[in-house]
Amino acid sequence: MEAFVILVEPKYAGNAGAVARVMKNFGFKNLILVNPAFSLNEDECRKFAMHAQEIIDNAELLDSFDEALEKVDYMVGTTSIESRDDKHHLRKVFLARDFAKEIYKMEGRVGIAFGREDYGLLNEEIKKCDLLVKIPTSDEYPSLNLSHAVCILLYELFVSKYEPREVLLADGREKEKMYEFFDEFLDAINYPVYKKENTRILFRRVIGRAMLSKWEYHTLMGVFKKAIQAARRNKQ
Amino acid sequence: MEAFVILVEPKYAGNAGAVARVMKNFGFKNLILVNPAFSLNEDECRKFAMHAQEIIDNAELLDSFDEALEKVDYMVGTTSIESRDDKHHLRKVFLARDFAKEIYKMEGRVGIAFGREDYGLLNEEIKKCDLLVKIPTSDEYPSLNLSHAVCILLYELFVSKYEPREVLLADGREKEKMYEFFDEFLDAINYPVYKKENTRILFRRVIGRAMLSKWEYHTLMGVFKKAIQAARRNKQ
Repeated sequence: MEAFVILVEPKYAGNAGAVARVMKNFGFKNLILVNPAFSLNEDECRKFAMHAQEIIDNAELLDSFDEALEKVDYMVGTTSIESRDDKHHLRKVFLARDFAKEIYKMEGRVGIAFGREDYGLLNEEIKKCDLLVKIPTSDEYPSLNLSHAVCILLYELFVSKYEPREVLLADGREKEKMYEFFDEFLDAINYPVYKKENTRILFRRVIGRAMLSKWEYHTLMGVFKKAIQAARRNKQ
Repeated sequence: MEAFVILVEPKYAGNAGAVARVMKNFGFKNLILVNPAFSLNEDECRKFAMHAQEIIDNAELLDSFDEALEKVDYMVGTTSIESRDDKHHLRKVFLARDFAKEIYKMEGRVGIAFGREDYGLLNEEIKKCDLLVKIPTSDEYPSLNLSHAVCILLYELFVSKYEPREVLLADGREKEKMYEFFDEFLDAINYPVYKKENTRILFRRVIGRAMLSKWEYHTLMGVFKKAIQAARRNKQ
């Protein structure tokens, strides 16, 4: 699957630049503009693109939505407004998150079309799309800024394949060691015996929920060691 | 839980406006700016805020990050760059999506802090945060536009509570009716008997996967009715 971001008749050069930047932020390369109201070399465009100038340099300019249709195997329309068809039935749409799971099953060139800043995609364009994706927004003000709409969709595509870097967590043996230290610590500070059991359970739960990294574990163990030493010294 | 979007020393008025707009897109109201490099009444700010002028009108201006800390019960720092602490261990962070599940368990005022356009949050600010949230991005160009970072985080918070409008699907009885029509249709067009069973199964699977809405069901049934009539007419 190769994805193409398609801006249909965008009005503002700054938006195209912001779109290029966010494409690079999420690892996308192919930008197509259908009949933009500006030149890609306008300062606004270049300024908002920041370190994604090459996406602007390589962007493809087309004259019509139909030309864009010829460039792709699937055309995906986007909307943030729940549109109704001629019979006043809700159109069946994918939510952005669900689409992110579907797109990687597709083969070939997938165009993701974003409409004009004011009117979005026209009905006749939507009719030519293979599927329609909705970005959920508040009913009170559903209309997203163009680059924000692109941002969310590409973020969803990126995240659906993202594997977080692993932080090494303290393992079971280490946690047990910490609970032992905590017991010693309670002894050292003469914690009341009748309260011990409950406090021990509470500590175990707190540490369990906190999911300590190895480094956090070692640092806290150092604190316990010092505390136990200090308390014992005072006992003597 | 009440959420506060906190922009720390933002440089560009347009970004603050774009942030206000996307806050309204996702149903958030409370904006705090710490020591911005511009006035909220600059044209750029008002222009990008579009229909979210009231969020700008009601925004709170503070002089320092410490003042912002006093306004909230939890301070959440955001980053798109995997930061390492003094000991070169990865800091433990929540991914934006995981944070969106956690935040609604919090009670009180939760501040979500976004750093400067160029440097993000400073280390000393991050140290004062109760937790750190990471927006995953490409390693090649991780730095998001400020309003894009806010956009993704608020989108995640919004979506985690979003309930899609239901589209009424064709029910089991209706689908059976359609399979009967399909059988009649195969008869009417003299479809070869030895192929019938497989084609029937195939049709059932295709319709099953397509999850027809009631409206799509009725439209397609109309098509079958006409087709059966036409085929029978030619048979006579």
